[in-house]
Amino acid sequence: MSARLGELAALLGGELIGDPGAEVARIAPLESAGPDAISFLASARYQSQLAGSTAGCVIVAPALRDAAAARGAAIVCADPYLAFARLTQWWAARTRRAPEPGVDARAVVEEGALIDPQASVAALAHVARGARIAAGAVVGPLCQVGEGAVVGEGTVLKGRVTLADGCRIGARGLVHAGAVIGADGFGFAPVRGEGTEGGRWEKIAQLGAVVIGDDVEIGANTCIDRGALADTLVDDGVKIDNLVQVGHNVSIGAHTAIAGNVGIAGSAQIGRHCSIGGAACILGHLRIVDHVQITVATVVTRSILKPGLYSGAFPFDDNAAWEKNAATLRQLHALRERLRALERKA
Amino acid sequence: MSARLGELAALLGGELIGDPGAEVARIAPLESAGPDAISFLASARYQSQLAGSTAGCVIVAPALRDAAAARGAAIVCADPYLAFARLTQWWAARTRRAPEPGVDARAVVEEGALIDPQASVAALAHVARGARIAAGAVVGPLCQVGEGAVVGEGTVLKGRVTLADGCRIGARGLVHAGAVIGADGFGFAPVRGEGTEGGRWEKIAQLGAVVIGDDVEIGANTCIDRGALADTLVDDGVKIDNLVQVGHNVSIGAHTAIAGNVGIAGSAQIGRHCSIGGAACILGHLRIVDHVQITVATVVTRSILKPGLYSGAFPFDDNAAWEKNAATLRQLHALRERLRALERKA
Amino acid sequence: MSARLGELAALLGGELIGDPGAEVARIAPLESAGPDAISFLASARYQSQLAGSTAGCVIVAPALRDAAAARGAAIVCADPYLAFARLTQWWAARTRRAPEPGVDARAVVEEGALIDPQASVAALAHVARGARIAAGAVVGPLCQVGEGAVVGEGTVLKGRVTLADGCRIGARGLVHAGAVIGADGFGFAPVRGEGTEGGRWEKIAQLGAVVIGDDVEIGANTCIDRGALADTLVDDGVKIDNLVQVGHNVSIGAHTAIAGNVGIAGSAQIGRHCSIGGAACILGHLRIVDHVQITVATVVTRSILKPGLYSGAFPFDDNAAWEKNAATLRQLHALRERLRALERKA
Repeated sequence: MSARLGELAALLGGELIGDPGAEVARIAPLESAGPDAISFLASARYQSQLAGSTAGCVIVAPALRDAAAARGAAIVCADPYLAFARLTQWWAARTRRAPEPGVDARAVVEEGALIDPQASVAALAHVARGARIAAGAVVGPLCQVGEGAVVGEGTVLKGRVTLADGCRIGARGLVHAGAVIGADGFGFAPVRGEGTEGGRWEKIAQLGAVVIGDDVEIGANTCIDRGALADTLVDDGVKIDNLVQVGHNVSIGAHTAIAGNVGIAGSAQIGRHCSIGGAACILGHLRIVDHVQITVATVVTRSILKPGLYSGAFPFDDNAAWEKNAATLRQLHALRERLRALERKA
Repeated sequence: MSARLGELAALLGGELIGDPGAEVARIAPLESAGPDAISFLASARYQSQLAGSTAGCVIVAPALRDAAAARGAAIVCADPYLAFARLTQWWAARTRRAPEPGVDARAVVEEGALIDPQASVAALAHVARGARIAAGAVVGPLCQVGEGAVVGEGTVLKGRVTLADGCRIGARGLVHAGAVIGADGFGFAPVRGEGTEGGRWEKIAQLGAVVIGDDVEIGANTCIDRGALADTLVDDGVKIDNLVQVGHNVSIGAHTAIAGNVGIAGSAQIGRHCSIGGAACILGHLRIVDHVQITVATVVTRSILKPGLYSGAFPFDDNAAWEKNAATLRQLHALRERLRALERKA
Repeated sequence: MSARLGELAALLGGELIGDPGAEVARIAPLESAGPDAISFLASARYQSQLAGSTAGCVIVAPALRDAAAARGAAIVCADPYLAFARLTQWWAARTRRAPEPGVDARAVVEEGALIDPQASVAALAHVARGARIAAGAVVGPLCQVGEGAVVGEGTVLKGRVTLADGCRIGARGLVHAGAVIGADGFGFAPVRGEGTEGGRWEKIAQLGAVVIGDDVEIGANTCIDRGALADTLVDDGVKIDNLVQVGHNVSIGAHTAIAGNVGIAGSAQIGRHCSIGGAACILGHLRIVDHVQITVATVVTRSILKPGLYSGAFPFDDNAAWEKNAATLRQLHALRERLRALERKA
């Protein structure tokens, strides 16, 4: 496919410097963009890369207008990274085939499921009774939509997604392959006593569901458990990466972003506009206020009541250095006592 | 649905204080339970919440009998949390539709699979030759049961579960969506030498299987690998949360509970009645005795031969404090040496 | 099944000590191998176990030739562990049924997909238009192969695998259940400003794909994301365990092995012949050179430009000791300052 620069400038609401009839055939990172590609400069920090680029066109911020014009064609946008994002969406819509509305004859749709005529249900999808699939929604191949589950307008479940009984997702969502929304929360009561029953676990049936807002994206093989009594809640605009575990009765505030491999234990309350780095771990029953950022691999063991940046990864090192420091770490408290003793003497 | 208090007291084997004909329509946490709900007080610690609750009925321990009676209807049980667990199960059984026995015409069942007439195999499930599905067992939509695999009596594989060739699960189990039981263990022999073959990995075919006992629950997208030569073993009553990795030839003792995102490397032996916190990591070929508790995110690098509580998470902090401490941590061994030098002088 | 020792010695290219007509019926670890089993001694370190073994035959290195001969039948191979690996493969090929070529009538294959007559597509698999499945390849039950995706010669997708649109895997690969190759990378541009739009995330459509070389194994429920603009790359001979997250535009060099629960953030470049321990975490946009080994649970926060062994796990301890040391760790920088003050005085 190809696109004319005039068309792209209009799409992005930017000022075009150069020939509106000139064409580009791809979007590329600045360092590898050739004359047939459009690229972008997300930040003025990268200005040094601009002059040497052979890109057919570059999206730049107003501050770089002159520098870009000196090089060749450019589209000037207030926020080039955002413009780039919108350009990729437009490009994808032009180059990818949208699923056709209708229920494939090889899908299994139980009686009493309500499928909007403008929804698409693929071959080998399974939609149980009482489920509702709204207009423009897509249920991909090998998905399972449980009894009474609801898929909102325009929401896409890519292949092999589970939306379990009674769980609901709003409009314009996107759920990637392997995600499981609505498996049971991990809840058991210990059976006390010394007999053969003692030490067993009695299951707490998970009677709640998962309720997800609009514009939510959920990554591949991510799990969001259903609530024990009340529902697990994911608010509008939340973005969750792959292989994330969200326990029962967690609530995640609007526009919070959660990177891959994160674990959030039951009943944690995460605020709005938070970002949680990869492989971080948040304990149960605690609260994180709005606008908190947690860096990679941090283990959050108590509530965070003040916005800001929080960290907790062990600094890695070459193995020999790490071994020495880790061994000393086991005596750290004793070291402090020895230091205190010296201080008293001094 | 609704239930009369007399019926619930009989079910739970507790003493009813109040009108046996009074009805409740839901189970709710104490803080949000209204007059149409039954709730519970898991511990006397929460006694202060009791007086203010508007719950229609509260399950309490004998010690709180009088305090509860002063408030309104109550059911007195020796272990209110356990009673609550049993109540949720009864509630679920009353409100959820059980799958009907029989093989759906749109399931794929290969010749030579033995499906008990009282088992249920859903549409789009795939059951290979030689598999056996016992009475009361449920194979949900889009599940894959491999050749010669065995599903015990009353065990439920929710949708999109894989039970691979030759793997077995006992009675009354529950496996959530996306779980993979019996993928290959991660075993390779290095090819030595300097040529093009050198540094390659030669696969060790995984000839064992996975054998799972009775009353085991396995979470969504959890993986339990098949053994290399002998089998991987999960004993009775084990509860495993979501996104847990269990390597080949691991054995997990009865009634051990494992939280989400845990990784257990090959040939580790975990005892009975252990609990392993979320995102903990257990190295291979080591042994953990019975009644060991491991807290969240702990990396267990050697055997644990004494029951007790073990920890190892890095304490998180605001980023500035963490950076200072983490930087100093890299010099910790040197600090110790400096301290020692001072001590010698003093 | 059973195998004669003469046949096995020829297969492994080793010298047989003993009766070529003697038979073994299984492969077993040395400590549990009885007279009907063949076993192996991976290293001379285990020599003490040799004399007491009742194994029908033992594969040993030349250095142990005499010790093995004194005990009974043996096959002498230059690299017994590698010979064992090859023996398991041969055993598996002899005892497991290979899928028959052809497309099962209950598979869904869209028009325009190219399936080699020698490929096998199982019941309930979904292969989209434009996909190509090469000779000897196997698409297992409930797999999803996207539009234009390519499965190379002899590559096996076990059940419930997703290979998304346009993604390619080379020859002789093996992908385990639940793996998702080609879900969207996690890329969003923040929408700035104070209005209702401010703080939202705008999706960056992921226009790249995933390209995987030959002889690659990918574990159960592992995710490899498609690239944003360019492709995510996994080179020949790479082995990836279960529940691993590989972000968009990562590249992984040939013959690198990655254990379970690892997370690799976007655009990281991992070299050849590396090994990455379980639950390790590698940040985005950094570079790791060839022949780097990273131990379990290490968080790699900067590039590693020198081959070697790197570590970073917090040393675990019993809870009481850990609590003391962790609390002191929060004051570590202050301790250093106090030490410095003492040193100045001394």
